[in-house]
Amino acid sequence: MTSRLPAGRRTILGPGDDAAVVTAPDGRVVATTDLLVDGRHFRRDWSTPYDVGRKAAAGNLADIAAMGAVPTSLLVGLAAPPDLPAFWAERFADGLRDECDVVDAGVVGGDVVRSELLMIAITALGDLEGRSPVTRSGAQIGDVVAFAGRLGWAAAGLATLSRGFRSPRLVVDAHRRPQPPYHAGPDAAKAGATSMVDVSDGLVADLGHVARASAVRIELRTDAFDVPAALADVGAALATDPMRWILGGGEDHALVATFGAKTALPTGWRLIGSVVAADSDGTGDPQGDVLVDGKPYTEGGFDHFR
Amino acid sequence: MTSRLPAGRRTILGPGDDAAVVTAPDGRVVATTDLLVDGRHFRRDWSTPYDVGRKAAAGNLADIAAMGAVPTSLLVGLAAPPDLPAFWAERFADGLRDECDVVDAGVVGGDVVRSELLMIAITALGDLEGRSPVTRSGAQIGDVVAFAGRLGWAAAGLATLSRGFRSPRLVVDAHRRPQPPYHAGPDAAKAGATSMVDVSDGLVADLGHVARASAVRIELRTDAFDVPAALADVGAALATDPMRWILGGGEDHALVATFGAKTALPTGWRLIGSVVAADSDGTGDPQGDVLVDGKPYTEGGFDHFR
Repeated sequence: MTSRLPAGRRTILGPGDDAAVVTAPDGRVVATTDLLVDGRHFRRDWSTPYDVGRKAAAGNLADIAAMGAVPTSLLVGLAAPPDLPAFWAERFADGLRDECDVVDAGVVGGDVVRSELLMIAITALGDLEGRSPVTRSGAQIGDVVAFAGRLGWAAAGLATLSRGFRSPRLVVDAHRRPQPPYHAGPDAAKAGATSMVDVSDGLVADLGHVARASAVRIELRTDAFDVPAALADVGAALATDPMRWILGGGEDHALVATFGAKTALPTGWRLIGSVVAADSDGTGDPQGDVLVDGKPYTEGGFDHFR
Repeated sequence: MTSRLPAGRRTILGPGDDAAVVTAPDGRVVATTDLLVDGRHFRRDWSTPYDVGRKAAAGNLADIAAMGAVPTSLLVGLAAPPDLPAFWAERFADGLRDECDVVDAGVVGGDVVRSELLMIAITALGDLEGRSPVTRSGAQIGDVVAFAGRLGWAAAGLATLSRGFRSPRLVVDAHRRPQPPYHAGPDAAKAGATSMVDVSDGLVADLGHVARASAVRIELRTDAFDVPAALADVGAALATDPMRWILGGGEDHALVATFGAKTALPTGWRLIGSVVAADSDGTGDPQGDVLVDGKPYTEGGFDHFR
């Protein structure tokens, strides 16, 4: 597998020793780790090994971008059943490579063990280039909320696959292979984003993390979103409001951030809401919260056409 | 779990965000990752969750030390079956904490997912403090070979447990909870070690990695070792030559290194052999190799009393 993986231009010492050595130019390193379990985080009948590799890398690299950092490297553990075909591991490595190539990161280390259950452990490292990390807790009352990347595409693809369809390809491929807006993370940090998060659980759920960490309330306006034609078509075919995928779907690894009201948003960022006081509705609710069109959002109950 | 884990003095931003931020004072970061599978790398009937935590951390932290670096932090993934008792995860976290405390490292991030199979993914980060990493490939003809830490203890403990015994505690505890000589790694690097490796597969096997990476041959002399009384006793009880555990046993996470012949060995390092040319026996064997008392070592066939 190692021969298929990218060395990375930040790599001082790659795989094959007790540990790797990677440059950390600004004297700090950003680090995040994820576990992906066969049948739970990916399905071998729905995704090729290549797609699993791309998706596993993408989710982790997006977490680095969500701190405002640039990914430098990945470490990858693969727990593989004895009957896993060699081509599966090879194509998985190819997927890792191609996703790493998007951000010019190297795969610097790993571990392959035998296991009855296929599982992937990924750790990504990144560099802040001298900037402060953009956390979840910095949103300020009066800030605007904006996102970059795609929302709802992977969820529409998942809904399509779940109904037994393999097309339309646009949304199915979006589920198999997310396209995180890696550059948008450092761009937002440079522009002065006050908080940022990677959308992995769903836009409202992840903004809930920001709201609680920042002790604020976040208000979204559905009329601020454009519903992409692809999602509208799939929504019509599956009798589902596509706004549900946009607000509740994870796995596209969009980035969502808050900015001061006077900040010029970087290219690719779109305004969708604002940050208000946690008790803005006068109910005295001490918890942070997310309102959609002025109402609490519940996954099952949302219908913006109602 | 997070509340039980050590923050770490190198930690700028700990768990709870998309990624952690750790200091990397010398502008490089050392990184290594391991996967541990229930029933394969640990057994819940032989080790407590506390011991599994200590051992999982120890193996990874020792890999950092084997580069001549100082561990700074861990990231830990836990794939847990739904029926895993909460106390198991808590005591596992306690074990991670206590092992991290030995080297003053923090647990800065992690991931907990549901899985049918209990599995642990650990990534350790470290700092080289301005030194060059000590790799496996730097051994020079004429160097001496030395080790620090324990050899054979964990293997004697495993042999004891495998025969259905729970004592002597000294060796059983050594299997459950290795005590890597963390300081010996940076000490060796400061003294000018030319190569170094963590003994995880067994002394001869791991020196084989060094020999091949360095294109040399390594010669060990069994009379250079002291057989600890505890190992001699267990060996007598189990009718096993304890030298077999010393040469072939892994999991104690001793460090073994090569030094120039004139180098004064740091405290805790013991001379056990020398580095010679790969074709020192005139057979023209182009592969690096390890000889024990002048003969190739094979795990099953070794008996130094024969």
